[in-house]
Amino acid sequence: MAEESTVTAPPELTVGVAALTALLDGRYADVRRTVRELLPAYASVLEDAETMPRDEFRERVKDVVLEIAGTGAAAMGFPKEYGGGGDIGASIAAFESLAYGDLSVLVKVGVQFGLFGGAILQLGTQRHHDAYLADVVSGRLLGCFAMTETGHGSNVQALGTVATYDPDTSEFVVTTPSEQAGKDYIGNAAKHARVAVVFAQLEVAGERHGVHALVVPLRDESGATLPGVRIEDDGPKMGLNGVDNGRIWFDPDGTVRVPRENLLNRFADVTEDGTYVSDIESAGRRFFTMLGTLVQGRVSVGAAGVSASKSALTIAVRYALQRRQFETGTDGADGGPEGQEQLLLDYGLHQRRLFPRLARTYALHFAQEVLAGELHDVFSGIRTDEETRRQLESRAAGTKALTTWHATDTIQECREACGGAGYLAVNRFAALKADTDVFTTFEGDNHVLLQLVGKGLLTDYASEFSDLDQLGMVRFVAGLAVDTVLERTRVHRLFEQIRDALPGGSDDWHTDSGLRDPNYHLAMYRFREEHLIGGVARRLKRGVDSGMNPGEVFSQVQDHVIAAARAHVERLVLEAFVEKVAALPDDSGDLKLVLNLLCDLHALSGIEADRGWFIEHGRLNTQRSKAITREVADLCRRVRPIARGLVDAFAVPEALLRAPALIGGEA
Amino acid sequence: MAEESTVTAPPELTVGVAALTALLDGRYADVRRTVRELLPAYASVLEDAETMPRDEFRERVKDVVLEIAGTGAAAMGFPKEYGGGGDIGASIAAFESLAYGDLSVLVKVGVQFGLFGGAILQLGTQRHHDAYLADVVSGRLLGCFAMTETGHGSNVQALGTVATYDPDTSEFVVTTPSEQAGKDYIGNAAKHARVAVVFAQLEVAGERHGVHALVVPLRDESGATLPGVRIEDDGPKMGLNGVDNGRIWFDPDGTVRVPRENLLNRFADVTEDGTYVSDIESAGRRFFTMLGTLVQGRVSVGAAGVSASKSALTIAVRYALQRRQFETGTDGADGGPEGQEQLLLDYGLHQRRLFPRLARTYALHFAQEVLAGELHDVFSGIRTDEETRRQLESRAAGTKALTTWHATDTIQECREACGGAGYLAVNRFAALKADTDVFTTFEGDNHVLLQLVGKGLLTDYASEFSDLDQLGMVRFVAGLAVDTVLERTRVHRLFEQIRDALPGGSDDWHTDSGLRDPNYHLAMYRFREEHLIGGVARRLKRGVDSGMNPGEVFSQVQDHVIAAARAHVERLVLEAFVEKVAALPDDSGDLKLVLNLLCDLHALSGIEADRGWFIEHGRLNTQRSKAITREVADLCRRVRPIARGLVDAFAVPEALLRAPALIGGEA
Repeated sequence: MAEESTVTAPPELTVGVAALTALLDGRYADVRRTVRELLPAYASVLEDAETMPRDEFRERVKDVVLEIAGTGAAAMGFPKEYGGGGDIGASIAAFESLAYGDLSVLVKVGVQFGLFGGAILQLGTQRHHDAYLADVVSGRLLGCFAMTETGHGSNVQALGTVATYDPDTSEFVVTTPSEQAGKDYIGNAAKHARVAVVFAQLEVAGERHGVHALVVPLRDESGATLPGVRIEDDGPKMGLNGVDNGRIWFDPDGTVRVPRENLLNRFADVTEDGTYVSDIESAGRRFFTMLGTLVQGRVSVGAAGVSASKSALTIAVRYALQRRQFETGTDGADGGPEGQEQLLLDYGLHQRRLFPRLARTYALHFAQEVLAGELHDVFSGIRTDEETRRQLESRAAGTKALTTWHATDTIQECREACGGAGYLAVNRFAALKADTDVFTTFEGDNHVLLQLVGKGLLTDYASEFSDLDQLGMVRFVAGLAVDTVLERTRVHRLFEQIRDALPGGSDDWHTDSGLRDPNYHLAMYRFREEHLIGGVARRLKRGVDSGMNPGEVFSQVQDHVIAAARAHVERLVLEAFVEKVAALPDDSGDLKLVLNLLCDLHALSGIEADRGWFIEHGRLNTQRSKAITREVADLCRRVRPIARGLVDAFAVPEALLRAPALIGGEA
Repeated sequence: MAEESTVTAPPELTVGVAALTALLDGRYADVRRTVRELLPAYASVLEDAETMPRDEFRERVKDVVLEIAGTGAAAMGFPKEYGGGGDIGASIAAFESLAYGDLSVLVKVGVQFGLFGGAILQLGTQRHHDAYLADVVSGRLLGCFAMTETGHGSNVQALGTVATYDPDTSEFVVTTPSEQAGKDYIGNAAKHARVAVVFAQLEVAGERHGVHALVVPLRDESGATLPGVRIEDDGPKMGLNGVDNGRIWFDPDGTVRVPRENLLNRFADVTEDGTYVSDIESAGRRFFTMLGTLVQGRVSVGAAGVSASKSALTIAVRYALQRRQFETGTDGADGGPEGQEQLLLDYGLHQRRLFPRLARTYALHFAQEVLAGELHDVFSGIRTDEETRRQLESRAAGTKALTTWHATDTIQECREACGGAGYLAVNRFAALKADTDVFTTFEGDNHVLLQLVGKGLLTDYASEFSDLDQLGMVRFVAGLAVDTVLERTRVHRLFEQIRDALPGGSDDWHTDSGLRDPNYHLAMYRFREEHLIGGVARRLKRGVDSGMNPGEVFSQVQDHVIAAARAHVERLVLEAFVEKVAALPDDSGDLKLVLNLLCDLHALSGIEADRGWFIEHGRLNTQRSKAITREVADLCRRVRPIARGLVDAFAVPEALLRAPALIGGEA
């Protein structure tokens, strides 16, 4: 509800689409372009998703996955000696671009090469790599990643499947002790997987050593299920029906036996005589170390969320540039040509609905780029310290939560912005919405992921605390003086940054800083983060000090932990965007101005959305709060003339947009 | 992020489920119960929706609709002499209850009996009633409601189809002048409709008289399309695939001719010699009068949105009472039994996610009840004044927007709150989400509907202004002094109410009123409404006075108009809830306390969500704002023990919940 602005309009910007695409594509422009050029050949899959019976569609998707595997685009992260591309960063870029196409294909690629292949690569050793990876990379051996169980979603440490070592035969006996301990929602399980990486409680000589992974065959060459293995189809799903999710139970009587060598033994092993050995002493830490190697899955889902948002925005913006609506005088007396209705995108409200989401999509794109870069560095051995690894895991978890929620929200808004036409399957939104829906809960439920981020923040990623569960975290924080908590956490360092960022010191937020100064935006985001973390620490401490049990304390502050984590990730996202723009040479002309505009819009609409909190905490007064609302509307008006260029720069292949009636088809 | 409260816990409430159901069922308890008892017989349709090929499923849905028609549950609003129930209110109650079942069935019922049958009833006269209604009510004659066109969604006045009177043959020639003027998204058109009520520009003796409706046959008895009629299938949709939506074109060369008597002539007619006659002089007003009679469709969609929210919340709350997660110490030292994880619903965050939505569902239920009552009174001739009718139309439009957005939001949150399991089709969310998605844009796009509400607010529903378009409205408002605008609108009266409501006068909001005083809540909601309306009026006036053209002015204040309209409807919803609770006898024990609790939670979480605005406008200080956040968390904790009863009271038939794994099945 911006009041009219009195600022003189700045000159109109123009977008060099190719230059902007190049900037978005970044380091892996070739990979991205290759995948984008590959995808139109499979555009018909989008239609098959609607028309084929489920079984047939699953086969179709499998065939496409194998064809894509044949091009090398699916396995860029595997070592070259097994047929991979030997470049982690490239594999993320390829996955992100594949997400412009059908998402069943994408997720099946993710299951086979990311989860299944990734587990063998990361948790296994040479013998497993030699035995499996070439076949995984080529697609000759399809597999699945059997972690989640019906009875335990996000709480993997508590899963029920057991692998008991039998020293007499040097085998592991894999059993599902109860119906609820069946593996569930496992992609590739219902039809195509011949083997599974199974996560189970490892039991050696009567002693439990926590969750470990081992390779367990599921089907023979003919596709028949092996003895002792029971598999059930998860049935139709909201979306992603080209992926054959299923449930797996292993005979509780012990029919399923695999050789000792099938244990993926990078972090722990069992010797032939039945001795458990591991370089990592703490069971919890061992578990989190194993899980940590699987972080690529979360980075990939986050990337897919950004791509899906780009597809939706491309359609909605182009629709709003075609569709006219109402309001111009039918008598021709109101400035417009007679009977000419106004373009949807010229309405302030429509701009408000689409442009902040467009700006945020850019922000999340660059945040993903930073994240993928860190992933690459850590997994390529460029950065090896423990803290970097912990921060990567935290950033991956938090970014995944934000990008996937953003996708859900953006796709919904874009679909509504296309009216009834958006409801037809031919217009892409049906599939985008249904297929991406699960992103918010798979590879870790978003709320659980943010709790993980919160825990990291409160313990400063200290490796000695990395294996703490939430209760351990509560006790840890409660055991320190609050000042110590603040010092041990990022908070203290952050606060210094804030003070430095504000021209007149921290007392001057209201007055001296320009609304479009990125230092002001960062100071606001940092303040929020710092304040929320400090608040959580104080509440945890007070709760425990007052005699409540840690579980109860945690339950009461849980939303506060999550708010702190979210504020933290929002700050990382904004920093990524600000740094990207700052790094552009000043002579890059409109390109820099355009990105500055988007960065301002993203930052300010974020502050606007949370202005209640900022006012409550003394960081906004009501005048400035209203000024921000006006500024956001102004920025939207400035985005209007370049909106088409901004979505064109995403370079979603035309054949994948579908929506001929909405966007004017191939014309 | 509530800080701990120091208030002593009040005694725990209990819910009498039967009594609460009776209260929710209200006047039409019998009708609702009948429908709820009818539905389980068709529970298999929910599964058929996933498993049947589209064509087969459409037939299945049609058969179910005809069977339901046979019970009388679908046509309660039609006059008894044609086989109906003769009770408008009952028809809404039945529709609302039908919405617990498959929504393709529901929407097909809506198309046949609400839209098609309703148009003949409301726009036609005795001759049409006699000719069609008995067959409509029995389902012998299936029809469709052909209003929307590809080129014009919400802007019906500008549609392109033409009906030209030919005095030589006493016929109307119905033509589609361009591809874009084809009727689109028309339910029942692709397969089952034998006739259509077609909305077309009426042309008599070379003169256009605006949009009118007439009955046009589409198919012969065998189902073959008639000469000059071209029908195309809209194809697969995001959801509601049991409804056969299609496009219709009428030969532009004039093959399609219908007798003069086919004009639905309640408000206008053409005499045999070709004279246009109508008691309503203004073409605009005639149009809005016709449209106004179709308000029942919006009331029905709103009701369905509330029901769908109830289904989703029932599943999510029951799931959260089954599912345990994390956090209790594995050493058993933290108060819980060893290894026992906490119930999801015991987490503060989970309560925050579900309970305000639960409370709002109650609020919207009672708002719908008031709306359905007004609809009944107006359409049963109990209240006949023009202003009541206008207010009904406005309330229907606004309530539909709020309930359908609420459904989208609630279903999404509930699905996420059920984790990955919520993604499986067997668990109802897939269908709920996909089927209800279109509710936000059909029967009028929600934003367009709120604009309509805003227009009514700004012109005080004055009948002489009811046919103004948005530009007329801008000019009208601009032509008055701002004080006059405020006086002419509800604003002035509202403001008096606000002052009366606050114990110490309007200066005392911060201090004297209790947070749980409904008068305080109402004062806040009323203030927001009044302030937003006044602000819009001033901006409209200032814009026009400064020489901008009305179209531009409107575009700039559009989001403000919509915010004002939304605030208005929010106030109506809250009033409906408050009045419902106030009307309960004080000796109704916990029932009244329970509803008070929900009403407080609804009201306060609404203020909390918009606290930035309230602070900006001097109606909250930061202390009180934080106190509200704490209070919301406290209220959630108080709802926790009665949550199961609150969803059980919705009485969604067990067989329709599906979700056996989520809620424990039939056990």
